[in-house]
Amino acid sequence: MARFTLPGETGMEEKIKELVELWGVDAIRDSDGTTLSDELMNLGLNVYSTLCLVRMDNEWIMKHPQYRQQMYLMSERVTADEETVRINIMETIYAEQFEPNDDVDINKYWQVVDRTCNEIIVNWTYEKETTEVIIQNAKRFHQYDVVFLAYQKWEPVSMYNHITNKWTSEHKIPIDVRHKEAGDHILEILEDWLTNHPKTDVVRFTTFFYCFDLIYNQYGKEKQVNWFGYAACVSPLALTGFQEEYGYELFPDDLADNRMYNTPFKNPTKKYLDWMDFNQRFVAEFAKKCVDLVHKHNKKAIMFLGDHWAGTEPYGKYFEMIGLDAVVGAAGDGVTTRMIADIPIKETEARFYPYFFPDIFREGGEPVKESLNVWSKCRRAIIQKPMERMGYGGYLSLACMFPDFIDHVKDVAEQFRFIYDSSDGRGSEKTGIKVAVLNSWGKIKTWQTHQVAHSLWNQRCYSYLGAMEIMAGLPIEVEFISFDDIRKNGIREDIDLILNAGDAGTAWSGAENWIDAGILETIRSWVYAGGGFIGIGEPTAYPNEGKLFMLEDVLGVQKEIGLTASCNKPNREEHLEAHFITKDVNTTVDYGEGMSMIYQASPSATVLDVAKRSCSLVVNEYGKGRSMYMAGCPFNDDNARILFRSILWATHNENLEGKWITDNIHVECNYFNGIAVLNNNSDFAQTVKVEGKVYEVDPYGLKVLE
Amino acid sequence: MARFTLPGETGMEEKIKELVELWGVDAIRDSDGTTLSDELMNLGLNVYSTLCLVRMDNEWIMKHPQYRQQMYLMSERVTADEETVRINIMETIYAEQFEPNDDVDINKYWQVVDRTCNEIIVNWTYEKETTEVIIQNAKRFHQYDVVFLAYQKWEPVSMYNHITNKWTSEHKIPIDVRHKEAGDHILEILEDWLTNHPKTDVVRFTTFFYCFDLIYNQYGKEKQVNWFGYAACVSPLALTGFQEEYGYELFPDDLADNRMYNTPFKNPTKKYLDWMDFNQRFVAEFAKKCVDLVHKHNKKAIMFLGDHWAGTEPYGKYFEMIGLDAVVGAAGDGVTTRMIADIPIKETEARFYPYFFPDIFREGGEPVKESLNVWSKCRRAIIQKPMERMGYGGYLSLACMFPDFIDHVKDVAEQFRFIYDSSDGRGSEKTGIKVAVLNSWGKIKTWQTHQVAHSLWNQRCYSYLGAMEIMAGLPIEVEFISFDDIRKNGIREDIDLILNAGDAGTAWSGAENWIDAGILETIRSWVYAGGGFIGIGEPTAYPNEGKLFMLEDVLGVQKEIGLTASCNKPNREEHLEAHFITKDVNTTVDYGEGMSMIYQASPSATVLDVAKRSCSLVVNEYGKGRSMYMAGCPFNDDNARILFRSILWATHNENLEGKWITDNIHVECNYFNGIAVLNNNSDFAQTVKVEGKVYEVDPYGLKVLE
Repeated sequence: MARFTLPGETGMEEKIKELVELWGVDAIRDSDGTTLSDELMNLGLNVYSTLCLVRMDNEWIMKHPQYRQQMYLMSERVTADEETVRINIMETIYAEQFEPNDDVDINKYWQVVDRTCNEIIVNWTYEKETTEVIIQNAKRFHQYDVVFLAYQKWEPVSMYNHITNKWTSEHKIPIDVRHKEAGDHILEILEDWLTNHPKTDVVRFTTFFYCFDLIYNQYGKEKQVNWFGYAACVSPLALTGFQEEYGYELFPDDLADNRMYNTPFKNPTKKYLDWMDFNQRFVAEFAKKCVDLVHKHNKKAIMFLGDHWAGTEPYGKYFEMIGLDAVVGAAGDGVTTRMIADIPIKETEARFYPYFFPDIFREGGEPVKESLNVWSKCRRAIIQKPMERMGYGGYLSLACMFPDFIDHVKDVAEQFRFIYDSSDGRGSEKTGIKVAVLNSWGKIKTWQTHQVAHSLWNQRCYSYLGAMEIMAGLPIEVEFISFDDIRKNGIREDIDLILNAGDAGTAWSGAENWIDAGILETIRSWVYAGGGFIGIGEPTAYPNEGKLFMLEDVLGVQKEIGLTASCNKPNREEHLEAHFITKDVNTTVDYGEGMSMIYQASPSATVLDVAKRSCSLVVNEYGKGRSMYMAGCPFNDDNARILFRSILWATHNENLEGKWITDNIHVECNYFNGIAVLNNNSDFAQTVKVEGKVYEVDPYGLKVLE
Repeated sequence: MARFTLPGETGMEEKIKELVELWGVDAIRDSDGTTLSDELMNLGLNVYSTLCLVRMDNEWIMKHPQYRQQMYLMSERVTADEETVRINIMETIYAEQFEPNDDVDINKYWQVVDRTCNEIIVNWTYEKETTEVIIQNAKRFHQYDVVFLAYQKWEPVSMYNHITNKWTSEHKIPIDVRHKEAGDHILEILEDWLTNHPKTDVVRFTTFFYCFDLIYNQYGKEKQVNWFGYAACVSPLALTGFQEEYGYELFPDDLADNRMYNTPFKNPTKKYLDWMDFNQRFVAEFAKKCVDLVHKHNKKAIMFLGDHWAGTEPYGKYFEMIGLDAVVGAAGDGVTTRMIADIPIKETEARFYPYFFPDIFREGGEPVKESLNVWSKCRRAIIQKPMERMGYGGYLSLACMFPDFIDHVKDVAEQFRFIYDSSDGRGSEKTGIKVAVLNSWGKIKTWQTHQVAHSLWNQRCYSYLGAMEIMAGLPIEVEFISFDDIRKNGIREDIDLILNAGDAGTAWSGAENWIDAGILETIRSWVYAGGGFIGIGEPTAYPNEGKLFMLEDVLGVQKEIGLTASCNKPNREEHLEAHFITKDVNTTVDYGEGMSMIYQASPSATVLDVAKRSCSLVVNEYGKGRSMYMAGCPFNDDNARILFRSILWATHNENLEGKWITDNIHVECNYFNGIAVLNNNSDFAQTVKVEGKVYEVDPYGLKVLE
């Protein structure tokens, strides 16, 4: 029993007592929008209290508006059709969220740019009433835009919940703790709070300061989201501090970055890496002060990973110094589950989807179905990497309207505890294979690649994120390495396979890293000596002399980008070839967005499948090494098999097939202390043969073989 | 009658006399593989004799092998897995076609390159017996290749025909007339020939010297083809001459160009433009000598446009100085028809497909069907731009085995003459709209864009070439302009619409021309003032600061290339919107290869169609101007309507709809001296209403309304 944190709710006392037994609850927590009554606090459960320091004192911040958080925003690009151009900088920005900061010297802290010839404009004025920047003597038919500093008037996560749940309470304003007076004030109110909440056992910080980039548009809808961004840590104070420390100045364009806000999809610039480091150190140091205060009051300090990311970086250099006791995070799929589970800390907790919110817990809603879909993915992940605790969020009263959901959670909790306890917290045995996901970021983006936020579906992402989702639940070790890692240390001995996936030009594929001769040499020689390589989409891609894939010799394929159309390529029939990696596939392979005009480039390659006249599944032998190319790998049971089999094949581990691969693509087999455990990832009952015996596994069932 | 050139064949005398009447033949010609008997020469027809100077004297060239034509070839890239790398330079080259030229100083004229770090290698040796280049002290896992000079042992067009028709005659060797002794010899044999052929009225030169790039691989199959290339004009003599004249040296890499051989799909380099000019002048001057000789003998000199292209450039600066009387060319579709028809010369002749060759004229072959498919496209073109003459090629004896084909040709010839005569050679009236196809080459590539050869189907081309094919048969003026034209002269008054189509990074789209501020200014201001703009595929594209389409404000759309995935884009339903340009379309639009992740970028744009979640048909208003974006435009009757309507709409000529657009997408209406003429482009009978009256038009029929 135990390992379960329940979202409490005043008024639900009797029901909660039942659930404590039924679900095996050992902790209770409040959350945004709910409180805990004294009765709930006195049930003998651990009491978790949610604290969001950054929006904790609205009265104070209203008196000190200069300490509101700030960020650089950008206007739209406006084409000059006359010599005078007026740009309403707030035209596509949510005025409830942001307000231009013209308290500063705007000639220094704002920037007006002619984007047609990349020239910074010096002569312009700002009209506060209309929020317009006016450029005189503009060049006709050049495009102009404005990068401007803006105060955040509404803390964006609070804003999100407010809008989603139609709250009418006051707008919480985020406080920038880098300002000494603000930081001291926050520490003071934290100390007061701790003193006044003796019943709280665990302080659950809603991450710490500075929200990830979340910008709403003029209609109050999401305009831009980057779960991993540092765009919201800006202030003149921070910029000045940065310049003093790093010896150079950051300009508005460096941070607003042409509306890209240094998205992790781009190879990071040196400046941006410095900026991240600068903020990470500040956040870690300040968070440590908070955690130390909590510990001083004999409480535990845990962090919810999800909103105020910037600076905390659980896979970064400064995370451990914060001194947290645990991390809890929202587990929406296998990838986000692993992102939390793999954090180097002694305890992690999954907050499973769905939230008990009225979007799903409404008449006609199907919360059990929603949950099974999420749980089946998260379960794959925790089978490989168990977590210490689980929980849910939202309004318990809503969940209680669905008795089948209450039963379902009992089942989830039992499976969750079984996985942890029967594997002694270690999860399944492993194949011994280690896969390194190679991208421009490496370790710091562990399980954070190929997504804009919360593993949300995105047309440019799902064909790659699927591969991560698959690997999150395979009995392999997965780590994330960067090109710099290879430059510094070569490829470590324990790595068996390198996987590179993404669109050409992105940080996930690697962009200009692929014309570094050293990188090419190292990877080629490593594969040649027996290493495995998997490329998905546009791997090893950088357009160079008419070619795109720089490791076409390793991959055996190349992509026609329009410059070598004069070179003949063989016509290909659409036909799935038999091979170790396609053995379980009886259907058309789903490559997601897929690719066009991929052609065989090495005679040694074997084309296993062609889609839309383009080679979509290809294996190659390179020296003693092997490679697999796939045009895209969205998550489904077929692709899970193809990818797992490819990993076995490319690492010369075909002999592991018998132990690890069942005869039913929907059922996976893992081993806890020698005992085989079957998980059915489908919503149908499945039969599967293991060591000659046939078993039936319930829909989404977990079956332990004795 | 007349306007018809018949391919004669000894032994077919009686049949030919019949056909002279039936088809209205006024000229007879020999061709590769056929001769004309005295009887045929004396039928009172004009006698055309085919001369291919470049392969005219095999005996002589075998005695002077140093004057064989040469070109730069490239080996494959070889990855060094040891310190010694051996590269068989002929590994993937057809040994019957080429032989390495190591008579020259190979250290000067060959080049060995480390492509991994782009370094020229100095220490290497060549082993003649194995045709291997040996590199010592190679860097392990770098890739190496060799650019080497090679003699052409077999003239490639002769080779093509030889292989296709399984000829067993001797291999014709091409003579490089730039060598004075060779050139003088050719002029001598030409003079002799002219003296000895008094019955010849017209000398039909098979273009002139230097074949377009046609390289066969080790299996005797086509490896690389570029109909418009200058890769085959290379010799130490030419390179030396070039250096003397231009003051700089061309290196092997400049011409072999990393296996791309300066394909026109690339933006041309200054060096390559110089090289083209250098060869154009030589070819024009030498061809003029030949033409002058022909004229001296009171014969006409015409050129067949099709094989030995390099240097002749009918839309180039030097073409007119050659002094030809006519050009004849292979008309395989509307685009190639217009390429010939539009040449600035007083007479052009179409040689229609199919050739009377055994590939089609065989038992079970359907030559009429083949011909109708070609003819219906060519007819659209000549309705707009009539040609003076027509003809066929190949073995007449084969054609005569198909009586229905004989009847069909009668019909074609009558339509051909009708189109010319009833329009006084001017073709249809026009709408008055002029479309400029903007690309990096401009006029010199008139009707030569978006193709590798002969309008052959190519996966990277057909989605763009379709738009050219459509325009070849529309009642509009089409010209081809370059970015340099705009830089020098702005956009001329008479241009109503600019069309830009192609893959990003290619010369057809324009590549880096799109970050020239002057170009952007000029086009934006011109559209804003009322101009029309059509973009297909990846127009105005150059990746810059996370954006791809540089004129997103004009087009109203942008393409997500993976760096701005964090910015939200609206989800789109697949639904064809009603609009002037989609009025005739009742089916799913075929965008060919299409695009992915095109999203609306301007609020003023209207998305008319979405395919694969990507905006595929979009119109926009920009000032007084209008634009249309289409994801791809393969040739079919639906797309012909969409494109024609888009041209009318974008140029504010919707009022022309009534006159020019019929109520049946398969039937077009044109006007010869005020008389309406309907052409049915389908193989079914079609009914169509014109000015209130309903007409039936036969399958592929041409119907004149009185």
